Amino acid sequence: MDYIKPNEVIQSVAKAGEKKSSLSVVHILLKGILSGAFLGYATTLAYQASTQTGMDIVGAIIFPTGFVMILLLNLELVTGSFAMLPIAKFRGLVTTPKILRNFTWAFTGNLIGSIFYAILFTIAITKFGHLSESLVIDKIIAVAESKTVDYKAIGAGGYVVVFVKALLCNWMVTMGAIMAFTSHSTIGKIAAMWIPVFIFFGQGFEHAVVNMFVIPAAMMLGADITVGDWWLWNQIPVTIGNFIAGFVFTAICFHIITKEKSPSIELVTKDKAS
Amino acid sequence: MDYIKPNEVIQSVAKAGEKKSSLSVVHILLKGILSGAFLGYATTLAYQASTQTGMDIVGAIIFPTGFVMILLLNLELVTGSFAMLPIAKFRGLVTTPKILRNFTWAFTGNLIGSIFYAILFTIAITKFGHLSESLVIDKIIAVAESKTVDYKAIGAGGYVVVFVKALLCNWMVTMGAIMAFTSHSTIGKIAAMWIPVFIFFGQGFEHAVVNMFVIPAAMMLGADITVGDWWLWNQIPVTIGNFIAGFVFTAICFHIITKEKSPSIELVTKDKAS
Amino acid sequence: MDYIKPNEVIQSVAKAGEKKSSLSVVHILLKGILSGAFLGYATTLAYQASTQTGMDIVGAIIFPTGFVMILLLNLELVTGSFAMLPIAKFRGLVTTPKILRNFTWAFTGNLIGSIFYAILFTIAITKFGHLSESLVIDKIIAVAESKTVDYKAIGAGGYVVVFVKALLCNWMVTMGAIMAFTSHSTIGKIAAMWIPVFIFFGQGFEHAVVNMFVIPAAMMLGADITVGDWWLWNQIPVTIGNFIAGFVFTAICFHIITKEKSPSIELVTKDKAS
Amino acid sequence: MDYIKPNEVIQSVAKAGEKKSSLSVVHILLKGILSGAFLGYATTLAYQASTQTGMDIVGAIIFPTGFVMILLLNLELVTGSFAMLPIAKFRGLVTTPKILRNFTWAFTGNLIGSIFYAILFTIAITKFGHLSESLVIDKIIAVAESKTVDYKAIGAGGYVVVFVKALLCNWMVTMGAIMAFTSHSTIGKIAAMWIPVFIFFGQGFEHAVVNMFVIPAAMMLGADITVGDWWLWNQIPVTIGNFIAGFVFTAICFHIITKEKSPSIELVTKDKAS
Amino acid sequence: MDYIKPNEVIQSVAKAGEKKSSLSVVHILLKGILSGAFLGYATTLAYQASTQTGMDIVGAIIFPTGFVMILLLNLELVTGSFAMLPIAKFRGLVTTPKILRNFTWAFTGNLIGSIFYAILFTIAITKFGHLSESLVIDKIIAVAESKTVDYKAIGAGGYVVVFVKALLCNWMVTMGAIMAFTSHSTIGKIAAMWIPVFIFFGQGFEHAVVNMFVIPAAMMLGADITVGDWWLWNQIPVTIGNFIAGFVFTAICFHIITKEKSPSIELVTKDKAS
Repeated sequence: MDYIKPNEVIQSVAKAGEKKSSLSVVHILLKGILSGAFLGYATTLAYQASTQTGMDIVGAIIFPTGFVMILLLNLELVTGSFAMLPIAKFRGLVTTPKILRNFTWAFTGNLIGSIFYAILFTIAITKFGHLSESLVIDKIIAVAESKTVDYKAIGAGGYVVVFVKALLCNWMVTMGAIMAFTSHSTIGKIAAMWIPVFIFFGQGFEHAVVNMFVIPAAMMLGADITVGDWWLWNQIPVTIGNFIAGFVFTAICFHIITKEKSPSIELVTKDKAS
Repeated sequence: MDYIKPNEVIQSVAKAGEKKSSLSVVHILLKGILSGAFLGYATTLAYQASTQTGMDIVGAIIFPTGFVMILLLNLELVTGSFAMLPIAKFRGLVTTPKILRNFTWAFTGNLIGSIFYAILFTIAITKFGHLSESLVIDKIIAVAESKTVDYKAIGAGGYVVVFVKALLCNWMVTMGAIMAFTSHSTIGKIAAMWIPVFIFFGQGFEHAVVNMFVIPAAMMLGADITVGDWWLWNQIPVTIGNFIAGFVFTAICFHIITKEKSPSIELVTKDKAS
Repeated sequence: MDYIKPNEVIQSVAKAGEKKSSLSVVHILLKGILSGAFLGYATTLAYQASTQTGMDIVGAIIFPTGFVMILLLNLELVTGSFAMLPIAKFRGLVTTPKILRNFTWAFTGNLIGSIFYAILFTIAITKFGHLSESLVIDKIIAVAESKTVDYKAIGAGGYVVVFVKALLCNWMVTMGAIMAFTSHSTIGKIAAMWIPVFIFFGQGFEHAVVNMFVIPAAMMLGADITVGDWWLWNQIPVTIGNFIAGFVFTAICFHIITKEKSPSIELVTKDKAS
Repeated sequence: MDYIKPNEVIQSVAKAGEKKSSLSVVHILLKGILSGAFLGYATTLAYQASTQTGMDIVGAIIFPTGFVMILLLNLELVTGSFAMLPIAKFRGLVTTPKILRNFTWAFTGNLIGSIFYAILFTIAITKFGHLSESLVIDKIIAVAESKTVDYKAIGAGGYVVVFVKALLCNWMVTMGAIMAFTSHSTIGKIAAMWIPVFIFFGQGFEHAVVNMFVIPAAMMLGADITVGDWWLWNQIPVTIGNFIAGFVFTAICFHIITKEKSPSIELVTKDKAS
Repeated sequence: MDYIKPNEVIQSVAKAGEKKSSLSVVHILLKGILSGAFLGYATTLAYQASTQTGMDIVGAIIFPTGFVMILLLNLELVTGSFAMLPIAKFRGLVTTPKILRNFTWAFTGNLIGSIFYAILFTIAITKFGHLSESLVIDKIIAVAESKTVDYKAIGAGGYVVVFVKALLCNWMVTMGAIMAFTSHSTIGKIAAMWIPVFIFFGQGFEHAVVNMFVIPAAMMLGADITVGDWWLWNQIPVTIGNFIAGFVFTAICFHIITKEKSPSIELVTKDKAS
């Protein structure tokens, strides 16, 4: 049977989380860099599609390409790990320090990869500075400004909005990480994980790793955004919101709803967890 | 063989219904909340697509994303259960009280999840109240009004229409729940269950759980709908219509057409059922 | 191996035909009703797509949804049986009276299901008579008139056209029934059977069961068509044309081209058939 | 493993070619007739799509439907055989007279089937002569004239063009026949063979069997083309070009690049071939 | 299990690289010629789609067709080998001279195949010189000029841009070669490899083999490009950039992140490599 039932899915997620926690720093970092770059690629492709068709939904249906590459090749995406490692923890397979170590280096790797791609992409799209406007350049700047200075303009309410959008985003991203485990086949994994990622990107929710590319790229392209705007009004609240969604909505919920019928797991969690 | 023949499909549906009936209340509630939220996500994505393209059919082809997540992860959607648990009953696997217990908590969970998503989504789409109009806001309001006050305006005939649309909807939703069992593979399940859900959403029929999101969301967004309008002119008649369609058109029909060739099942139904 | 070679395909079709012939009348009727209704659903969805996009080809690519549901769930569609049961006959597995019995009740079931859906759909689309015009209402009326009174207007030549269009239609529909047997997997079956059904609907050929919905629905919606127009200028010649295409182009041809290399089958046909 | 490696693919192609060569004349003819008709169906569907959307590329993506039916059902398409039988010959599995016998009857069958479909289609599309213009009628006439009298207008250069377009076409068609063998599954075969057929049709290259439908259909529909134009300026040079592409670019090349690593095959070819 | 985990994927890539290194020159050359021609076909099809729809993204989604044919049939594409053979080297399976031999002949084959297709295509598209303008002709010329004389116009900065675009391209092309190994099934391979190739082509990055077709074709079609422009401002820097991306971003990175958990491989690399 190619299809995998939810209880087994979550147990596989837990084991995958365990493996992630035991990777060397070099591996986490390198895998994180690749993930950051691949999401950057997918984002710029999506913007090509959006600007050419005039419809963001077309970009959104294309965006999961990058996510698929990351998950099929088992790379490190910190937002996905926000649910996978806690699930491993609830099943007694990892310790909190190991989780924090993974989060730290995966986040760092994602950031490096995103900025690396942003530099290369900016050189390409601006013809090394000889071009300052194009549909995609304008799109990147507009998106990045809407993700930073627009929240700032609203003030405290802006924090609520960015935080809620971060929750709404990573509930789906972590569901994508879980959906990928519902199949033994590559085509099944691709189709299953495509869905939630399409859902979040199509509604413009806030994803920490996508923003690691979009905002610095926009800054290089001349957007009116400071480093402070980026981190205070986006990167920090989005990362927190992404974590909470992954931890609460996905990790806790799916741990609970799938733990019942496997007594051996419960024994383990009694002994090791909490 | 990946493809599963109808007799085996319905027997699997019956067993799945049996399992649903024996879940703890916490599990039903939590699974119901997730389902409600996921359908909300799919609905707002569909409206993004509809409003951007100006074609509801594009939204409809996207909408089944939420349904696929629910079924692949074996969550609780009361409208699907309207056929699955009766089939389990006809095969002597569950009792009526257990069915009603499932319906009650699944309905409650779906309602909580839908409203929870409606709150988060409303914060995001209105920028915490700083924005009162957009294509998607207008769409949600227009749809919700057409699903409530428009029926009320017609009077008694409005009840006939909303009830018939609820029948037409859940015949297909429950067919989606059944089609998901026609394959052992994830891609096969996705493709098979996509079809009937696409069919109902593409024609604007009335689905109790979708409405648990659309109508309260529209109310939060300023639609001219009262709680009474919601429940009297939509939620209650739609839930009844959805149940009857699931019970009569799907559960009874498919129980009958697939029971003949498995004598062991018939023995069971003679002993336990009716 | 998931793919199934033609000789085995036709032998499976023959066995499926045999099973169809031995179903009880209640089963044939109930399965026929479901098929009629499901094709109705698919037809109205296709018209939604056609009218919203202004392109009939978009409706055509969606239409096979209903056919897929029918075949995956092994329901009774008389037009598909027009080839399947004759193949079973050529292989010595059924008798002519049993074929006629299946045809009669499947046709009746298809008709009841189609009209049942037409009634429900008409209530929904007209808001129980409060609405008399919409893109889809106009489409249904226009299509139904082109399928009846337009032929009548041409006279004898109209009979030739409707008959030829019925041949062209059911050659493909029966090929869809056969293509569904080329795979052991659900996704393979869906893809394979989608093709010929898309081909016929995309060219507006005449399908007896689709017309059982479209014409009465149009009549309820106010089209200028009499019951005589429906049966004399469409239902009867289309059913005959559908049968001849299924019998000659598909059943006879595929029986011949696949019988050679299986001596055991030839023995059977020598003994029982002809 | 569902995927099949190239060496095994070509060996399977060779064996399929062997079987083709040993079919009875009735089988080749009947299978050829079905193929001709099915390609005709696909062509007219493609033209529906092209004319409705105003984009030939949409028609092209739909056209492989006919080819898929032919290959999944193992029918006879002379242009595909132009590579498959030579490969069987290089592997010592068939003799040249048997190849010529297959080519002759497959060509004849394809021609009969194409013209048979052209007659039925012409009756349908013209409403038995009551309609002389429509988007599809105009398209068929325009395409057919561009495939005949337009080459004639250029003179000798026209021969070069039609021949080169025939080469470019059948390189891809024969690749489609080979790609179909790269998978054990129906969905894999469909996807793999779709690609090269889409490529050739999307660029308007010259395919002998498609032209057996398009040109006579156009003549029936009133195109200014004589039988001489059809055969001298299209059918004959296209068939020759199709054969050379299949023989040289596909059969010889793929025989060479896949023969090395299977010594048993080489022994056979030493003994029997050359 | 159809899906293949990354460690096994890279080991399979290494073995495939080993086989590539041991092919005869005739095989490499012939396989390279086929690859060059197939990419040419895919490029011109993509341009048909782009010009008809006015959207390059539509062409991009079609372009991977050629790449899929190449990889499913295990042909030689030098840009893909830029990562595959170094991985084989890191795992101690090939020697540097063998790698250079493969690169040389694959490059030569790709060049011959591309130019061969360019000649045939130019004859077809210009009607042997009777037509000098069309949407596709203009597109090829415009693209080729943007890939050569436009860089030259910028001067030194143009070199930076073309080099960066070559890096960005072949990171994805080599990822496509790797993604193809993530599945045992044909459909899984097709879907997985489609993604990165779509990503690069959709953004207009620089691919050495595509350019072997586009630039000479444009020259034949009358573009204002000299052989010097082609090689100095595109072919040479693009080939170098493509190699570096394949070697550094893909080969080194994926060798490192996948080597840890297979001690037997590490032993081999200790003994034979570096």
